[in-house]
Amino acid sequence: MAAKESSRTMKAARSAGRIGVVASVAMNLAWLAMYIRQRYGEITTVEASRGKPPVTQDSVVILDHGDPVMYEEFWRREGDSASILIPAWQTMSYFSNLGGICCFLEPGLEREVRRLHRLVGNAVVDGYHVIVGTGSTQLFQAVLYAISPASDGTPIDVVSPAPYYSCYPVAASFLNSGLYRWGGDANTFAGDDTSCVEVVCSPNNPDGGIRHAVVKSKSSKAIYDFAYYWPQYTPITEAAAHDVMLFTFSKCSGHAGTRLGWALVKDTEVAKKMTKFMELTTIGVSKDSQLRAAKILGAICNGYEQLPSAGQTRSHLFHFARDKMAARWTRLRAAVAASDIFTLPDELSEYCGFFKKTITANPAFAWLRCKKDGIEDLESFLRENKIVTRGGTKFGVDGRVVRVSMVDTDQAFNVFLDRLSTMK
Amino acid sequence: MAAKESSRTMKAARSAGRIGVVASVAMNLAWLAMYIRQRYGEITTVEASRGKPPVTQDSVVILDHGDPVMYEEFWRREGDSASILIPAWQTMSYFSNLGGICCFLEPGLEREVRRLHRLVGNAVVDGYHVIVGTGSTQLFQAVLYAISPASDGTPIDVVSPAPYYSCYPVAASFLNSGLYRWGGDANTFAGDDTSCVEVVCSPNNPDGGIRHAVVKSKSSKAIYDFAYYWPQYTPITEAAAHDVMLFTFSKCSGHAGTRLGWALVKDTEVAKKMTKFMELTTIGVSKDSQLRAAKILGAICNGYEQLPSAGQTRSHLFHFARDKMAARWTRLRAAVAASDIFTLPDELSEYCGFFKKTITANPAFAWLRCKKDGIEDLESFLRENKIVTRGGTKFGVDGRVVRVSMVDTDQAFNVFLDRLSTMK
Repeated sequence: MAAKESSRTMKAARSAGRIGVVASVAMNLAWLAMYIRQRYGEITTVEASRGKPPVTQDSVVILDHGDPVMYEEFWRREGDSASILIPAWQTMSYFSNLGGICCFLEPGLEREVRRLHRLVGNAVVDGYHVIVGTGSTQLFQAVLYAISPASDGTPIDVVSPAPYYSCYPVAASFLNSGLYRWGGDANTFAGDDTSCVEVVCSPNNPDGGIRHAVVKSKSSKAIYDFAYYWPQYTPITEAAAHDVMLFTFSKCSGHAGTRLGWALVKDTEVAKKMTKFMELTTIGVSKDSQLRAAKILGAICNGYEQLPSAGQTRSHLFHFARDKMAARWTRLRAAVAASDIFTLPDELSEYCGFFKKTITANPAFAWLRCKKDGIEDLESFLRENKIVTRGGTKFGVDGRVVRVSMVDTDQAFNVFLDRLSTMK
Repeated sequence: MAAKESSRTMKAARSAGRIGVVASVAMNLAWLAMYIRQRYGEITTVEASRGKPPVTQDSVVILDHGDPVMYEEFWRREGDSASILIPAWQTMSYFSNLGGICCFLEPGLEREVRRLHRLVGNAVVDGYHVIVGTGSTQLFQAVLYAISPASDGTPIDVVSPAPYYSCYPVAASFLNSGLYRWGGDANTFAGDDTSCVEVVCSPNNPDGGIRHAVVKSKSSKAIYDFAYYWPQYTPITEAAAHDVMLFTFSKCSGHAGTRLGWALVKDTEVAKKMTKFMELTTIGVSKDSQLRAAKILGAICNGYEQLPSAGQTRSHLFHFARDKMAARWTRLRAAVAASDIFTLPDELSEYCGFFKKTITANPAFAWLRCKKDGIEDLESFLRENKIVTRGGTKFGVDGRVVRVSMVDTDQAFNVFLDRLSTMK
């Protein structure tokens, strides 16, 4: 662009004296450079950390968290349309919207959250409150606080069918709360009349299965963890409409470092009590993260809803991520099929309302089982091969299975696959 | 700058044909505008909320939180040196520094935190770990978790001398934890051998008093809340060196919406357990907030340590804030002295190692007492006058006293003072 415009400038000025034009252009460019340096130069001097160190053929590959750094490639291509400039004087107040139920929720973020769900079709938003949290981790604890009965000395049991996300037992028990406690595997939870909180994670972390509530008790309450109910991971089969639904920015766009999640909540009293939890634990949620998330969710929607500018291609996050995940899963399934010792859950496929066709599911984690005799602790076995994963016992099942992140960098995934292929 | 450079450009090109030069300048400026719009235009389109609504002569004045919006004026003057541009692809990973004790702490933030304490002289940093939190509120709970003894069924008592910060009792009790519980006023806490956690807030929220630990028990542990130990609020009399010291960005620079705090922690095991708490509750702390805080703390230090660029004046945050607070306190003390019904704590003054002279303290809150007969609930009395404050009973004392924020906007402070002056 700069070269083209400069060339035009040269032509327009051709009739003028050569020295004058050259001086004019040079000085304008010098001024421009100075202007941009003064106006924007200082702004980029805080360099962000690079996260985990780069993976080499010999290094340890860390795949025990679902660290979604795979998405960096997309956002680098995307350029500045989703970058954000935060002036020094902005976002100073604790408050964002004193009139709202969630007084620290930035209205711009709420708008983009509702817009995104309407685009994707994965959840009903009309009639729901949006509550923002420091990741869905904080929101999960906020729901427990909000829906636990008033303390009568007996904490309510929090259950989930095994294999369940390893953070649920820890989050429900680490403070030894009198309001709630971890109750274990929902499949074995007894009692038709016992009240409990059931966490339904669908697609399920760690195994990618589609889940529905299993507890039959009439006084049980369900929390739906929809961290992975996005079209890059699973077919979108319906707009979910449960009482409490949790979403996280990190697994939607890949921005885990921003620590942002949201809940869609039907009941006003539950929404208020969740907001209270966020006030008591962190006096709200980073406004910088909220503004950034709003910008990025907006860019995702724009990519699908707006015509691209001249010279730009359409920017389709869910297509990018789905293609990437599908290619990785194809390679992983081939490697596992070629091995004698590993298995994976069966491939699921269904009609996806977002992609308007039948697609396979590509879970964010591989739930990898080892059938070789003598390997009772697969996590340790893989760690000897410098692959760090999370073992089955943390998810309430046996140690012959592990959870492996499928959303890390290409390098990490490739090295993981290379090493897996050599194991007999 | 633009006008000056344009004028020079015109002079340099004087010998060239007039049409050519005009076309050249105009087209360069047109290109510049297009360039800036394309390069940066999109970046500013997410508008941040304005926080609380503006105050008018008739409106309700909300002074019950210490919402530090007073500082916006400084940061607006400061311009872009403390603004931050976050590219879309940055800060995607959960991690910042896998080798560190606090693996989600941005190294740039740690550097600026240490630099600021060295500049101000309010805390020793050598030999301390820096732990970042979502405001010091989260850090306070992290310390309770970290220093509570392993659960034996009896929670440890958390105490603080009344009047104590109203959030301590709530934070220590709202989850009905088996690890710790609120134990009340430290002045009346019995037992020479009873273990407890004492929170020492100095200068004290709400009354601005200088505090030291009061519990005599040898097995008590102290947490120092130094949210207000900055030179705009109180003379800096020593570089504090306690085992655990909490600081918050919001009361230092005024950026409450960024939700960022840090702890200086001597013991490695305590630092690790606090980090664990942050992982369990929020899987780390917003990187966007950390990068922004690093930029802003760096700008504060630069303002004192670097020579200003040509045409710029020195930028001294603590001088700005101190002058502002001192002027407000002078006016408030005059208004209270003129009234028959209000009193304030005595003015404190001492030599300040930062300002290198004896200065008066200017607390972030006014601890306003009413001596008029019949007014037992000052919070309600002021609320009838459309002034929202926080009543003494929430701080463990009587209701004839309230806490009033001194760090709100000029408009809010002026209206508060006007109304106070009319009360008889």
